[in-house]
Amino acid sequence: MAQAQKITPRAKDFSEWYSDVIMQAELADYSPVRGCMVIRPHGYRIWELMQRALDDMFRATGHRNAYFPLFIPMSFLAKEAEHVEGFAKQVAVVTHTRLRATGKTGAAAIAVDPTSELEEPLVVRPTSETIIYAMFAKWIQSYRDLPLLLNQWANVVRWEMRTRLFLRTTEFLWQEGHTAHADEAGAEAEARAILAIYRKFAEEWIGVPVITGVKTESEKFAGALRTYAIEAMMQDKKALQAGTSHHLGQNFAKAFDVKYQTAQGGLEHVWNTSWGVTTRLIGALIMTHSDDNGLVAPPRLAPVQVAIVPIWKSDEEKAQVSEVGARVKAELEQAGLRVELDLRDTVKPGAKYFEWEAKGVPLRFEIGPRDLAAGQAMAARRTGGKAPVALAGIGAAAARALDEIQAALFTAAKERRDAASIRGVTKERFIEFMKAGGGFAYGGFCGSAACEAEIKEQTAATVRVLPDAEFRSQETPKTCMWCGKPSLAEAMWAQAY
Amino acid sequence: MAQAQKITPRAKDFSEWYSDVIMQAELADYSPVRGCMVIRPHGYRIWELMQRALDDMFRATGHRNAYFPLFIPMSFLAKEAEHVEGFAKQVAVVTHTRLRATGKTGAAAIAVDPTSELEEPLVVRPTSETIIYAMFAKWIQSYRDLPLLLNQWANVVRWEMRTRLFLRTTEFLWQEGHTAHADEAGAEAEARAILAIYRKFAEEWIGVPVITGVKTESEKFAGALRTYAIEAMMQDKKALQAGTSHHLGQNFAKAFDVKYQTAQGGLEHVWNTSWGVTTRLIGALIMTHSDDNGLVAPPRLAPVQVAIVPIWKSDEEKAQVSEVGARVKAELEQAGLRVELDLRDTVKPGAKYFEWEAKGVPLRFEIGPRDLAAGQAMAARRTGGKAPVALAGIGAAAARALDEIQAALFTAAKERRDAASIRGVTKERFIEFMKAGGGFAYGGFCGSAACEAEIKEQTAATVRVLPDAEFRSQETPKTCMWCGKPSLAEAMWAQAY
Repeated sequence: MAQAQKITPRAKDFSEWYSDVIMQAELADYSPVRGCMVIRPHGYRIWELMQRALDDMFRATGHRNAYFPLFIPMSFLAKEAEHVEGFAKQVAVVTHTRLRATGKTGAAAIAVDPTSELEEPLVVRPTSETIIYAMFAKWIQSYRDLPLLLNQWANVVRWEMRTRLFLRTTEFLWQEGHTAHADEAGAEAEARAILAIYRKFAEEWIGVPVITGVKTESEKFAGALRTYAIEAMMQDKKALQAGTSHHLGQNFAKAFDVKYQTAQGGLEHVWNTSWGVTTRLIGALIMTHSDDNGLVAPPRLAPVQVAIVPIWKSDEEKAQVSEVGARVKAELEQAGLRVELDLRDTVKPGAKYFEWEAKGVPLRFEIGPRDLAAGQAMAARRTGGKAPVALAGIGAAAARALDEIQAALFTAAKERRDAASIRGVTKERFIEFMKAGGGFAYGGFCGSAACEAEIKEQTAATVRVLPDAEFRSQETPKTCMWCGKPSLAEAMWAQAY
Repeated sequence: MAQAQKITPRAKDFSEWYSDVIMQAELADYSPVRGCMVIRPHGYRIWELMQRALDDMFRATGHRNAYFPLFIPMSFLAKEAEHVEGFAKQVAVVTHTRLRATGKTGAAAIAVDPTSELEEPLVVRPTSETIIYAMFAKWIQSYRDLPLLLNQWANVVRWEMRTRLFLRTTEFLWQEGHTAHADEAGAEAEARAILAIYRKFAEEWIGVPVITGVKTESEKFAGALRTYAIEAMMQDKKALQAGTSHHLGQNFAKAFDVKYQTAQGGLEHVWNTSWGVTTRLIGALIMTHSDDNGLVAPPRLAPVQVAIVPIWKSDEEKAQVSEVGARVKAELEQAGLRVELDLRDTVKPGAKYFEWEAKGVPLRFEIGPRDLAAGQAMAARRTGGKAPVALAGIGAAAARALDEIQAALFTAAKERRDAASIRGVTKERFIEFMKAGGGFAYGGFCGSAACEAEIKEQTAATVRVLPDAEFRSQETPKTCMWCGKPSLAEAMWAQAY
């Protein structure tokens, strides 16, 4: 257990606060490898719970998991022009396969063996389109093989200069879906269906409300026809891109010659999609719900949903409260909950409360001798409020409380987001808004990359998405809020992670 | 779906048979990256089922999952002398972080950017002791932090010259457990407890009987004090090392300065263990149970446990058998089984049988109009035998049949192994036995590396383990079967994968 340290308040330094929450909750740690982090058990458990929930949704919609090689021959990347340009500057390249002893001592005792140089360097996958579509070309022959709906859970590497735990690390974990379809409509429906799954997961599991929409040309995936995304607002009012779903068109199918025989006997290129969410979602979870006391985990993804802290002064009391604590634990586990019973002798109750709070546990039951006499426990919610709860039926009561907390976290996040969103912006209002702390700004957009670049330079804001109908303003903007030319679509701008 | 191709019979060429079974069942495929394979959905599902079962056992014994970086600074490997020697000749080394356009076309259009060379090369983890124990040094302060019981599911890379699907690939998937203990006894108990878990999993889930024991010096893990292993016999009588558990002593703790304060206030190095099983287990599954018709999957790990094949000649019949098939499927799924209902129009029943057989499905229900009239289905077992089963209560009947198949596969494998094992060997008998096809040979061993080397050279056999008491011969051998000197321990030799 880490030493209890003070967490920097959000108001003082949001970025420090974020790191402090992670270290205090033991979610992750810095590693000796530049830009790579260690995900500690408490953080990795959140990822496993996320994986389980998402995987069930993927499977229910006909996707199957597979595993493709970590390495990609350098020449494969070059096959799709935009793609290589997008990733060339941030890939880890394997060039040799042996080390040799140098005869020196210490760190200099070994060196790369120059005789082991590879004929063709290998790139550690920054994403797997190229290697996967090379296999698709082998597997797909006929329209009967379509759609092909695959997903992979894997690690990927993108060499990053400025890294941040969970949000931007050189190596990260993710899932990447890759599908092939007979026609454009099939690929479009798939990209959209996945976006809907991402939204559902973000909102119902992480408790993070999102805006869905399409990216502009300058923000889309390298090699895609079109990129859809879900965008969330963090407590510092910055946007976090939380998931992307790409309609790849026939770009990769043409680069890797993935063709199929149609029912009529013709030969056509397939249409592809790819889509992914990453360990960055843990960053979204942290920055949406947590407070100055540490992590607040939404119940559905909390590694520990209920912490039971018995309180005693004598051995006799300890025996009593421990026994009841064990019974409560059993009942809660029976109800399908993740529970810890904290019987440590060396830590005082107050310190235990502090620890479980920092670890984000949504619900804490305190059981002392007086509670026992009254047939109750004290239920303290991580989000505030403490009230007695009867020991009889405590499993159902806990499940109910967790549902309430889950719902309340989502509602609070949505209210915060909406309060920090403005619509129908003018250029002046926009600049002022971004200067005053920012948020989500909706307004007309002419579609030009020049406007985007100027806006980014002057305000650090980018178009996060051209929002889907549901998120657009009632009144359709007529002119670009920046240049005054006719608006092609309403855009949502924000400063972003 | 792959074209139906003939599987090479085992008797003709075991190695070809093995590849054919894998390709026919669509478990894996060769990739364009030297030595790396693609694990296809049917094979990956087996791995996921293995992961789930093992993970439950690790968790039930107090282990927690975490994730450590893919890259290891080269100097870290050098800190433990035996360790670097063991892995130096087979590591992928990352030396650069950018590609650049060359102005040429085609595959030569990009090259490694020489200005992006790393100051210190990074090794793609061949195993994670060094990076993990560097973190342990940071996390462990006091005896209260011990034992620390972590596990990681990850990919690792060991550059291999001769590769084989699942058995030996440059990149493979595995779990690696890493633990720290206050004393030698704690580490020893852990290494032993994990060996017991591996044995239980091999026998009760994969249906593969194993011999447990300790490795000789020449076969132990690079950097370990002692390596325990489970060894299984494949159908070609060769041994397959299916899992290892290492007592690392204080070797890595000293190299990485992992110390803890004892309850008495002293400062001591911790004792470590590490242990792992890999996707090689899928190879063990295949080579233990499968036959000349393809994969035979043990029911507990079969991606599809029951395939339902309705049979019809008219649309009316199709409607009837499909409806009953759907009901049977629902009932089986209710019983917790993994089921496919094969309603494809374009494939004849016979071809469907052939396909599900090649995919290793343990149980097939055929439902035709005549079966319906009799209120039954025909139940065909992958391991042989076909008999009617009443539709009423078919869920329970299927579960029973699967249990019987699981048990029978284990028994058959054990009988095969025991029939191909000899005890109390003399040198002459040993040489003759290994020449005649081999198997497991038990005999006295003097413990000398010279004998081991000579035996390996003359017979290709190695000491697989010095077996645990349970597996030793009733009569303790007194002399080394090879050199005649006093025996230090009974050994089990075999030719191995």
